[in-house]
Amino acid sequence: MCTAISFGKYAGRNLDIEKGYGESVIITPRAYTLAFRRAENITDHYAFIGIGTVSRGYPLYYDAANEHGLYVAALNYVGNAKYLPKAEKKINLPPYEVIPYILSTCKCVDDAKERLENINLIDIPFSSDLPVADLHFFIADTKKSLTAEPDRDGLSVYDNQVGVLTNNPPFPMQMHNLSKYAGLSKEPIINRLSRDLQFNQYSKGMGALGLPGDLSSESRFVRAAFHRLNCQNSGTPCDIFHLLGSVEMPDGSVKLGDLYERTEYSSAVNLETSTYYYRTYKSLSLTAASLLAEDLSGRMLISYPLIDETRVYRLN
Amino acid sequence: MCTAISFGKYAGRNLDIEKGYGESVIITPRAYTLAFRRAENITDHYAFIGIGTVSRGYPLYYDAANEHGLYVAALNYVGNAKYLPKAEKKINLPPYEVIPYILSTCKCVDDAKERLENINLIDIPFSSDLPVADLHFFIADTKKSLTAEPDRDGLSVYDNQVGVLTNNPPFPMQMHNLSKYAGLSKEPIINRLSRDLQFNQYSKGMGALGLPGDLSSESRFVRAAFHRLNCQNSGTPCDIFHLLGSVEMPDGSVKLGDLYERTEYSSAVNLETSTYYYRTYKSLSLTAASLLAEDLSGRMLISYPLIDETRVYRLN
Amino acid sequence: MCTAISFGKYAGRNLDIEKGYGESVIITPRAYTLAFRRAENITDHYAFIGIGTVSRGYPLYYDAANEHGLYVAALNYVGNAKYLPKAEKKINLPPYEVIPYILSTCKCVDDAKERLENINLIDIPFSSDLPVADLHFFIADTKKSLTAEPDRDGLSVYDNQVGVLTNNPPFPMQMHNLSKYAGLSKEPIINRLSRDLQFNQYSKGMGALGLPGDLSSESRFVRAAFHRLNCQNSGTPCDIFHLLGSVEMPDGSVKLGDLYERTEYSSAVNLETSTYYYRTYKSLSLTAASLLAEDLSGRMLISYPLIDETRVYRLN
Amino acid sequence: MCTAISFGKYAGRNLDIEKGYGESVIITPRAYTLAFRRAENITDHYAFIGIGTVSRGYPLYYDAANEHGLYVAALNYVGNAKYLPKAEKKINLPPYEVIPYILSTCKCVDDAKERLENINLIDIPFSSDLPVADLHFFIADTKKSLTAEPDRDGLSVYDNQVGVLTNNPPFPMQMHNLSKYAGLSKEPIINRLSRDLQFNQYSKGMGALGLPGDLSSESRFVRAAFHRLNCQNSGTPCDIFHLLGSVEMPDGSVKLGDLYERTEYSSAVNLETSTYYYRTYKSLSLTAASLLAEDLSGRMLISYPLIDETRVYRLN
Repeated sequence: MCTAISFGKYAGRNLDIEKGYGESVIITPRAYTLAFRRAENITDHYAFIGIGTVSRGYPLYYDAANEHGLYVAALNYVGNAKYLPKAEKKINLPPYEVIPYILSTCKCVDDAKERLENINLIDIPFSSDLPVADLHFFIADTKKSLTAEPDRDGLSVYDNQVGVLTNNPPFPMQMHNLSKYAGLSKEPIINRLSRDLQFNQYSKGMGALGLPGDLSSESRFVRAAFHRLNCQNSGTPCDIFHLLGSVEMPDGSVKLGDLYERTEYSSAVNLETSTYYYRTYKSLSLTAASLLAEDLSGRMLISYPLIDETRVYRLN
Repeated sequence: MCTAISFGKYAGRNLDIEKGYGESVIITPRAYTLAFRRAENITDHYAFIGIGTVSRGYPLYYDAANEHGLYVAALNYVGNAKYLPKAEKKINLPPYEVIPYILSTCKCVDDAKERLENINLIDIPFSSDLPVADLHFFIADTKKSLTAEPDRDGLSVYDNQVGVLTNNPPFPMQMHNLSKYAGLSKEPIINRLSRDLQFNQYSKGMGALGLPGDLSSESRFVRAAFHRLNCQNSGTPCDIFHLLGSVEMPDGSVKLGDLYERTEYSSAVNLETSTYYYRTYKSLSLTAASLLAEDLSGRMLISYPLIDETRVYRLN
Repeated sequence: MCTAISFGKYAGRNLDIEKGYGESVIITPRAYTLAFRRAENITDHYAFIGIGTVSRGYPLYYDAANEHGLYVAALNYVGNAKYLPKAEKKINLPPYEVIPYILSTCKCVDDAKERLENINLIDIPFSSDLPVADLHFFIADTKKSLTAEPDRDGLSVYDNQVGVLTNNPPFPMQMHNLSKYAGLSKEPIINRLSRDLQFNQYSKGMGALGLPGDLSSESRFVRAAFHRLNCQNSGTPCDIFHLLGSVEMPDGSVKLGDLYERTEYSSAVNLETSTYYYRTYKSLSLTAASLLAEDLSGRMLISYPLIDETRVYRLN
Repeated sequence: MCTAISFGKYAGRNLDIEKGYGESVIITPRAYTLAFRRAENITDHYAFIGIGTVSRGYPLYYDAANEHGLYVAALNYVGNAKYLPKAEKKINLPPYEVIPYILSTCKCVDDAKERLENINLIDIPFSSDLPVADLHFFIADTKKSLTAEPDRDGLSVYDNQVGVLTNNPPFPMQMHNLSKYAGLSKEPIINRLSRDLQFNQYSKGMGALGLPGDLSSESRFVRAAFHRLNCQNSGTPCDIFHLLGSVEMPDGSVKLGDLYERTEYSSAVNLETSTYYYRTYKSLSLTAASLLAEDLSGRMLISYPLIDETRVYRLN
């Protein structure tokens, strides 16, 4: 399960999984040939950077941002994603082509919103051993964000005013659920119970009592929304990493069968500079790669394996 | 407000405050003269390392560990701490002398427990502009941990089996409150409601639904306890920093008057090597200082101002 | 807002409103002419009994049961009910005709389910001063129950295995929400948090900690479901009145503007004998009317105004 | 477990047990000889009425009120009640003598408060087969109420401003816990989360979201307090029975071993007229006995076995 957040000029995500698949930072330059299964190839496009795995020469991104500051993350949407038959007059894409397609052709959320109206998500596995994942999408620029979800009626696109996406249930239900927490505040409790009684506020932070603290997708949505809506903006990538930290999965807290799910990596992109930052579960330090520092005119993917060790600065 | 945690061979804390006071990493070598207000000076003692401020040449520690792997953290206990009149036949200490006294004279939790029986906490301000803070204490070695709280009946000392301390209310009430959450699990929900109905577990992590997510002291206690009791031990300092991250205060989420409280620093000490690690709110990277790397025979405090900038490792 | 429950051979409801409208127990005999706005009149039908108001000679029922033991209650569904244009080949009914239509023509839930497939709900006000209410329906016999909700896609009919209906949100979302509480139990807490710690269960009933206690429609759904799924069946009407009592609105606890909403009446029908029981907010005692005790061959409605005073049995 | 509530001119309770013991309404007239184990007999005293069992000619009350409108209820306080050795200069009473002693000698809460200062609770079983129960006490008149709890330091007496008592934990912890719910309201949610977002209030009553709904003693305390602090006063006994209904135990919802706990009876006394009302789990109707209607000059207990069948008023 996962969480994506946009905040100020940054957007990023946690990838919560049982086991990594050898992820890399992958840069797709402008002349790399994007071959789509049922849509026309694109050979001249915007460049983008993100984390994913490269399989058979194709970049399977988990999240990425392009040179114009548009960000897309794909998140699990298990049991709810519905892929439809191929539709005439639509751009037919399997879910793993959504990130490359949007980032190669759109400059901003408004572009993406328009483009998504013509997209139909179809069920073509990437390979025989890689069935189609149930996914939905978080799309952000520095101004706004969208949620796109493949439902039985097609691709539903919602303005996402809280700047957060997790997993199940569908986005309208997440917003319905969030409405139950509208009374929570960064400020102390206001006594609404009784004019005649005085209650002791024995701790700071009591105005948010009732905020859910577990790691299920609905609770992460509410908690991330609460912190994001209250967060002070320092302009640095620290803010969004603290926000992602509030919904991070410690190794051991979520178990299924014999496996533990944990936050394998957290990322954030500065959408003004196209600099991609990440840290991994085992590497608390930030690592960064700049999209614009590369030669973007190339045809070949550029990749940097994830650094998975903690670099400690030693004082003595 | 604050949170202290011990986990495996590490112990550490979050310092949650509105504003830092110019903290440093401070090393107290063995021959530094520890002058106590109502107790006898100690001039030959164990060395220790921690974070605090130095005032008038005296180390006011927030948390520290000594060369034998004993750790003490002082946490706010506002409104509940009771300091008593000076008592004959007792070692009379104002609260800011507790960390130096314990760390200079005790090797382990059992030593500290015995020593605490003879300690009486008194109300002598450090200086005219620094009134006595309401504090209680978290004491840990690699085997066990204690809570020590100044109540109206004297200093109450409790075995702390969850390895967590926050702030109010008193420790027995924290444990009472925790008992309400004993049914929460890292594993999925077990359907105990109805044999005839099947419920959809639409997300991993639902077995912990009900875990409180706000930043008040009681909720942080429960959440930190849940994650700590479930945490997988990697042997690295990463674990405890992830645990501390689960109760971290993002800047903006806790407000009082015009001020925001946030996690100014998080620390963890490797109690086997006496290496002290920290990160600050603005510096996500880890910095470390080794106690044993210094010349510990000296008489002068050694200090390193906190590094408060993010060091990013750049790939290109 | 309201709650309907079926339990054993009883089905009933709370009517939660700001102000009563002069309700009566109304008996519709077999030869009363049921005149429908867009459907054909029915003049020979099953008899039924329930509470409602009579307007212009027409019985506007809130809930009722017929001589075959089928029960229907109409509950508020504000903002979610969608009424469609008149449809050819469908039985077109405004919502206030649903109870008479179903009860006059169906013997059991299976009958009603089949019938509902052909029903289309339309938006014709009962009168110029009585706009169409947003409603959904709870239908029960002694074996099973249904939820029927007018959505934008037509009338959605769901098997209702928990035997409870309240108000918003739509039934699938209520069941989704209920799934979060599947771990709650009538039995004590099972310690799933830690093998090494023992927690004090200081009260009976702690296995249901987390059950919501407020009076919003989602919380009433969960609470009523919990109690109903656990309830011991005594065969008397007491059980269901205790269940309805668990989600009753005390006068003062729910305010909107200057008005308080309260449980104006609670009802339960013995579906084997067609005896209708009720109590009102001001009359804690049970009052009963028997459908079969009347001459059911008539053409005229029979009504008994609600008794709204407490009858106390005095011992001395 | 149990709940006691005072509201307006009424005070009453739920008795929640696995199994009744043959309770009766018992009237103690003024000349009945109250024989105490370690205190002097009283033979001329105020008369009182309540529910309990008579054993060896002695009235073991669960709750009762006297002719001056003072009410006392005894509630389980398992594991927390501490009974002390007999104390010189104190009135030494085993817990089952508290109700008779207070009601026979005090006119109001202030009288009782003064009297309680001289009372020492001791551990003398009523009989060899009836060990001393762990109890604490709720004392009310039409103006105020008290909590009295036998702790290790003696009998703690607290002003009880919420007019509610349940069971564990001690009263100061109940009030501490209640302070977490001070933001709950009968009114709708006030959006404190975000100025920029609008949240849908899809139900009335959402201002109390977070109110606990289970039947443990701490949750019943909060829920009863919420409803009592908001309740509209009609002057009739209905109000307090609705309040008691909000924390009633349905038969089946609380299980321990093979036994279910349920609300065996609910009572309320009109403290202005000394009329005692009750209903039982199986008798939803109210039964009443008037203290003043009896000849109170007698020496013999008067008792009426509880009526345990539902009296239904039949319309046809």
